[in-house]
Parts: sequence; C-alpha cells; structure tokens
Amino acid sequence: MADVPTHEPTLAPLYDVIQRRRDVRAEFTGAPIPDEALKRIFAAAHAAPSVGLTQPWDFVVVRDKELRTEFQAHVAQEREVFAASLNSETAQTFSRIKIEGILESTMGLVVTYDPSRGSPAVLGRHAIADAGLFSVCLAIQNFWLAATAENLGVGWVSFYREPFLQQLLDIPDRIRPVAWLCVGPVSQLHTVPDLERHGWRHRRPVEEAMHYDKFGRQLQH
Amino acid sequence: MADVPTHEPTLAPLYDVIQRRRDVRAEFTGAPIPDEALKRIFAAAHAAPSVGLTQPWDFVVVRDKELRTEFQAHVAQEREVFAASLNSETAQTFSRIKIEGILESTMGLVVTYDPSRGSPAVLGRHAIADAGLFSVCLAIQNFWLAATAENLGVGWVSFYREPFLQQLLDIPDRIRPVAWLCVGPVSQLHTVPDLERHGWRHRRPVEEAMHYDKFGRQLQH
Repeated sequence: MADVPTHEPTLAPLYDVIQRRRDVRAEFTGAPIPDEALKRIFAAAHAAPSVGLTQPWDFVVVRDKELRTEFQAHVAQEREVFAASLNSETAQTFSRIKIEGILESTMGLVVTYDPSRGSPAVLGRHAIADAGLFSVCLAIQNFWLAATAENLGVGWVSFYREPFLQQLLDIPDRIRPVAWLCVGPVSQLHTVPDLERHGWRHRRPVEEAMHYDKFGRQLQH
Repeated sequence: MADVPTHEPTLAPLYDVIQRRRDVRAEFTGAPIPDEALKRIFAAAHAAPSVGLTQPWDFVVVRDKELRTEFQAHVAQEREVFAASLNSETAQTFSRIKIEGILESTMGLVVTYDPSRGSPAVLGRHAIADAGLFSVCLAIQNFWLAATAENLGVGWVSFYREPFLQQLLDIPDRIRPVAWLCVGPVSQLHTVPDLERHGWRHRRPVEEAMHYDKFGRQLQH
C-alpha cells in the first residue's frame, strides 16, 4: 500500500501525484465525493490543452444505479469475448484480474468527443483528423491526476462497444464516447499496477523508449 | 505574464501547474534544458497509465538542426494549405497567429504509438482499437505538465502529414507519430491562451460541458 499523502489536495505536488496515480478496480469504497473536490477536478480537466482551442470534450456524470447495472452487464459480456480469444495459460492469468469497479465506485464518468465543435476550420486539425480525439485524452489525464490529488481513485474501463454506450446514455451519433471512468474514494492506492501484481505484464524501463534524432537510434550522440 | 512560480519544480503543486500550462509558440529562448529536469520529465511521461500496461509510446528527441529545418519547411507549407481553406476574415485572423516554435525551441520531441507492443492479446483493446492511441496521449499530458513544473514551455505542432514525419525520422510504417512537441525554456508563459489573445476562439465555461446520467441532461437532478 502506498504511503498516505501528507499534502492538502490543492497543494499536492505534481510529481508525487503522477507516481501515486493508479488504474483502480477493486479498492472503491462507494463513499460520497465532496462537491468542492469535484469542482476542482472538473476545472482541472477543462483546463487541458485542445486543438484550435475547441475544448471538444463533454463530461457525463453517471450516478444512476440502473444505467450502471446495464453497463456492467455489457462489460461482463465483453470480458467473455476477450477471454475466449486467449490461450489457456493467458486465460488463467486473466481470470484472476478484476477489470472494472462500475458498481462499487461512487460514480461513472463518460468523457466524449464532439468533432463538430469549432468546425469547419479547426486550427491544427486539417492534416491530422484525430487531433481532436487527442485533446479529449489530455483532459482525461488532467482529470485523473486531479482526482488522485483529491485522494480519489479512477479506473478506465474499455471493455465496451461504443454504440452500446451511445445508446445507453442518449449520446448522439456524431459524438464519440472516449472513456468510461469509475471514480470515487478508495481504501488504498497500490504502489504496483494491478496488471503487474497479477503477472499479466511488466513495465519496461524508460531508457528503452528513448530515441535520438532518428527512430531506433538509442544512444545519445 | 503569469506570476513567476515560487515552488521548486519537484514540489510544484499539480493544480498550479495545470493552470499555468500553456501551448507555447513565440516565447522559446533556445536555452539548454538541465539533464536532471529532462530525466524527471521523461520519468513522469513514462509513468502514465496505458491500456493493458502496454506503454505503447516512444520518445524521439530531435535536436539536429537540419532535421528541424526540414520539418519546419513542411509545416510552413501545411500552414498555407490551411490558410487557403479559410474565408477572408478568418484568414486575416489566422495570419497573425504563430503556429510553431520548431527552430527557436531547444528540442523537438516526437511521441509515437506502437500498436504491436503487447499484442496480440492487449487487455482492454479488443473492443476499442484506439485505446492504445489514447494511452500515448496520456503520456503526452504527463510530459507537458512535468515540463511546465520545470518552468519549460511545450508547444504541440499538428500542421504536418504523418508520412512526412515518418520518413524524416526513419519511423517504421507500423509505428504512428502522434505529436511533435517543441520543448524548452521560455521567456514567459502567458495567462491567456494564444488563440484567445489573438481573437481566434474563446473558451467555454465548464458548466456547458457537464451532463448528468444522460447526454444533454444539463441540470443535476
């Protein structure tokens, strides 16, 4: 278990938060989230950079139990779809891994992408259509870090089909759901990611990700 | 001009950093970046969450002047492509906006996405193919915030064609460049985004982005 943070949320150092942040599945308590904390977290998400200053994200707070139960059942089906694609050894490892805390968390947060915002002339998107989608992810990371500073857990669930989620929450066709985040107080944040603790995969050293001037040139010249 | 930060980089509070962060074009000084700062920033980027713990990003540090000059010329061409798509009033506004600091910044950083990492069985990607791309964006936001904590500026350039950048830096076909970031010390960070200062677009209030249980339900019930 990670050390309990010693800072006020509003003073939590960025670097500490980045290292403490985890993708949470099993540790949600379901306790309420203070309104002031939520306000600060959404302000942080909304302060993310965006292509052409379009701020193409929307935030759908899902507290309704029935909607979450429907979503959870869909995710359970998709878990089976994935499990069926695995060889027996990998399937064994996967069987021990919890993939979502949809009902145990305090709320779901669906973050969406609206490509029409600021269009047709989106500054910075004519050559890279996905640039708006990238902006939404930057807002998600701000959200995730701010929630961590507030001692909340966040778990990104991606075992779902986008059309299912669109229909469930009346999301228009032109708007794409990008993430379902489980959000809420947690009993603890582990120091090692779940997938590493359960033997699914290990992290690689950052040095292996570094290249200099040309891709594949690993030593600084 | 924003207040000069009063915290040591390693203690800079997350919330301050999130509000101070800007997308920088004109303020790069070209001064060197201390090695220790770079190490901390890349460690922060590499600590981002990723689908199935794949960490599918790579970081290409581009310091070579010739490569940067070639890239800058390509971006200038793409600026013209975009300008030609605008009506005369919008084109006038755009003409006053600087879109990159490729040569003035201390270095370029190209962040890439490798879909093959951890495949074929990427936990959390079978239903959403873009989930790996999303992970790369989370690492970019960690990078951006850490650089801001170190009092560096970052500017995301997206006026380029991906195949051009692949060829320039020998990036293999299967690997996708996601961003060119200009990085380095700056004379200042503005408090208002460039695009707002230059009248391109204004930010919207966060309340307009909030929905409850169903998309379009704007008042909390």
